[in-house]
Amino acid sequence: MRVAIVGVGLIGGSVGMAARRRLGAEVVGWDARPAALEAALLRGAIDAGVEDIAAFGQADVAVVAVPVDVLADTVAATVAALPEAIVTDVGSTKQAIVASVDSPSFIGGHPLAGAEVAGVEHAREDLFDGATWYLTPVAASSGVAFERLHRFVSSVGAVPTAIAAADHDRVMASVSHLPHVLANVLVLQAAEALGGERLPATGPSFRDATRVAGANPDLWPAIYGSNREALLAQIDAAVEGLARVRDTLARGASLRDWQEEAASRRRALLEAGLVGGPVTELRVSVPNRPGVVAELALALGQAGINISDMSLSPSPDSSTGVVALWVEAQRAERATDLIAELGHPVS
Amino acid sequence: MRVAIVGVGLIGGSVGMAARRRLGAEVVGWDARPAALEAALLRGAIDAGVEDIAAFGQADVAVVAVPVDVLADTVAATVAALPEAIVTDVGSTKQAIVASVDSPSFIGGHPLAGAEVAGVEHAREDLFDGATWYLTPVAASSGVAFERLHRFVSSVGAVPTAIAAADHDRVMASVSHLPHVLANVLVLQAAEALGGERLPATGPSFRDATRVAGANPDLWPAIYGSNREALLAQIDAAVEGLARVRDTLARGASLRDWQEEAASRRRALLEAGLVGGPVTELRVSVPNRPGVVAELALALGQAGINISDMSLSPSPDSSTGVVALWVEAQRAERATDLIAELGHPVS
Repeated sequence: MRVAIVGVGLIGGSVGMAARRRLGAEVVGWDARPAALEAALLRGAIDAGVEDIAAFGQADVAVVAVPVDVLADTVAATVAALPEAIVTDVGSTKQAIVASVDSPSFIGGHPLAGAEVAGVEHAREDLFDGATWYLTPVAASSGVAFERLHRFVSSVGAVPTAIAAADHDRVMASVSHLPHVLANVLVLQAAEALGGERLPATGPSFRDATRVAGANPDLWPAIYGSNREALLAQIDAAVEGLARVRDTLARGASLRDWQEEAASRRRALLEAGLVGGPVTELRVSVPNRPGVVAELALALGQAGINISDMSLSPSPDSSTGVVALWVEAQRAERATDLIAELGHPVS
Repeated sequence: MRVAIVGVGLIGGSVGMAARRRLGAEVVGWDARPAALEAALLRGAIDAGVEDIAAFGQADVAVVAVPVDVLADTVAATVAALPEAIVTDVGSTKQAIVASVDSPSFIGGHPLAGAEVAGVEHAREDLFDGATWYLTPVAASSGVAFERLHRFVSSVGAVPTAIAAADHDRVMASVSHLPHVLANVLVLQAAEALGGERLPATGPSFRDATRVAGANPDLWPAIYGSNREALLAQIDAAVEGLARVRDTLARGASLRDWQEEAASRRRALLEAGLVGGPVTELRVSVPNRPGVVAELALALGQAGINISDMSLSPSPDSSTGVVALWVEAQRAERATDLIAELGHPVS
C-alpha cells in the first residue's frame, strides 16, 4: 500500500506514522515548506518526500492535511495528480470543500484530534486512537472509495463516522467555532470594561471561558471563514439566547430553571462525548505547593484511576487552590477515599 | 478582639479560622442551619455559636457571609444587633447591598476566593492569602471603620482594595457573571444543534468554555439577579460584539486582526491577574496513562517550579493528550528542558 500525505504537520505526520507502522504502508509526503518535509523524515512520519504534488506518481490513498485557505486548490491538484487514488482531506469544515470537488474518488474527512498543538514534531502514531473521524460522502461518491477510506481510517486507530457535510458544519459551529468566537468577545469586552484600571485577579471562570481566545491567528480566522453560513446561524442563535436571558433578568424573574437546565444538558453532553462511560467531577481543596498535583495524580494513577480532565484554580498568590478532576463515575468513590486519605477535602 | 461570623460556610468559616489563629480573636458564629454551626465548631472555625443574631452580645468586627437572597435582611439584623461593631459582607455584588444599608459602620466587601466549593468543611485558615478583597466604602462611611476593616482584612491574609460599588459590579459582571451566562447559552444551544442525534466527541474548547455552565443553581440565579443592571449592560455589550463579528464574517472580510487582538488582550488580562509576574503557557503532548500528569508535576515540583494553571485535553479514548501548563515566564525554559528530558514534546 502506498499513501500520499499532502501536508506533513501534526495531522498529516500522525497519519503517516500510523500508516507506516500499523499498515506497513509506504508513505510519501509533500509539504509547501521544505523544512517540514525534512522534519517529517526525521520523525519517521514518511518514507520519502516529493517536491511537487504532481510527482507523487501513484498512491492508494491520499490525505490532504493543509491549512484551510489553500485546501481547495491543494485537493484539486491532488485529485488531478492521483486519478486512481482515494483522496480525502482533514479540514475542520466540510460543505465548502465537498462542494468544490467534483470527483467520485474524493470523500471529505475530519478527525477530531490534535487541535491543541501544531507541527510534525508533535505527531504520534496513536494520535487518532479512539477518536471520531468524520467522513462526509455525497450521493456521487464511489462506494468502493468510501469502503476503503473507512477501513484506512479504522486502521490508523480512529472511529470513522459518516455524517452529512451540512450536519457536520452545524455541529462544529456549535461545539467548536462559536465557543472560540464567544471567548474572543469575552476577552475584548473585559478589556474594555476594565478600561485603563488596574486589573483584578480574574477568577477561574474567566480563565476557563477564555482559554481559546485568540487561538492560533494563522489558523482560526480561516476556519471561521470556511464555515461562514453555519457559524452565522450559530451566532444568530446565541444572540437570541442572550435576548431571552436578558428579558427574564430585566423582568426580575428567576433564572433558576434556566441554570438547572444548563447543568443537566452539560452533564448529558459531556458524558456522551467521552468514551468509557459517564464521568464524575471531584473538587479538591489543596495547598498549591509544588508537588501536590503530582501527589494527587500519583495516588489515583497507582490505583489505576485515570483522570479524563483536570482544571486547577489557584488562589491569586498560588498558595491554595481547588483542583477539579473528572474521573470515571464508577471509580469516583474510590478516588474520593484516596484523596481524603491524603488529607484534602473533596466534594 | 471579638469577631462575629454571620453564616459559617466556606468563606465565613475561613475568616473565622484565620481570625482565631492569626489574630487570637474570639470568634462567635451564627448560621441558619444548626448543622453548619456544629461543623464549624468541629472544624475550629469558631469558638462558640449563638442561636440568634440578636444574641451575639458584642463584637469588634462582624462578617456577614450568607447567600445573596437573604443578605440584605441579615446585614440589617446584624447592624441592629451590633451597633458598635464594624459590619461587612462578602457578597459577590455590591451596589444593591451598599444602597440598602444606611449605617456609617457598614462597609461592603467581596473577597475573590473560594467560589469553587461550598461548606465549612472546605474552610482554610489560608484561603485568603494573597487574594484581592474588595472593599466598597461610600462617602458616609466611617473613616475609622474603614481603617479597622482594612487592617482586619489584611490580617486574615488578603489584599484589601477599595473600589466604588458600581465599578466593582461592572467588573464582576464582565469577568464572572457574563462568562457564566455565555456558558449556559453555549450548552443549551449545542444541545439544540445536536437535536436527537448521537453526540460527537466534544473538543476541549467546548469543555473549557462550558466548565461553569449550570454552576450551583442554589447560588448563581441569585447572583445574576443581585447584579441585574450591570449584567444587563454586559449582555447588551456581548450582543453588540457578536453583531460586529457577524457583520465582518457576512461581508467575507478577515477576522485575523480581531483574533490577534483577542490573543494579546487575553495575555495582558491574565498576566496582570496573576501575582508573581507573567506566566508562560507550555503545551505538552503526553500519553494519557495514569501517572503521567504526576510525573510531569513532580519533575517541575522537584525543581521548585509551581504550576499556576493546568488544563488537560485528552483524546476521546484518553490514550493520548495535550497538557497545557502555565508556569512563571522566567522558569519556562527550565520547565521545557525538564519536560523534554521526560521524552514529551513541548511547545
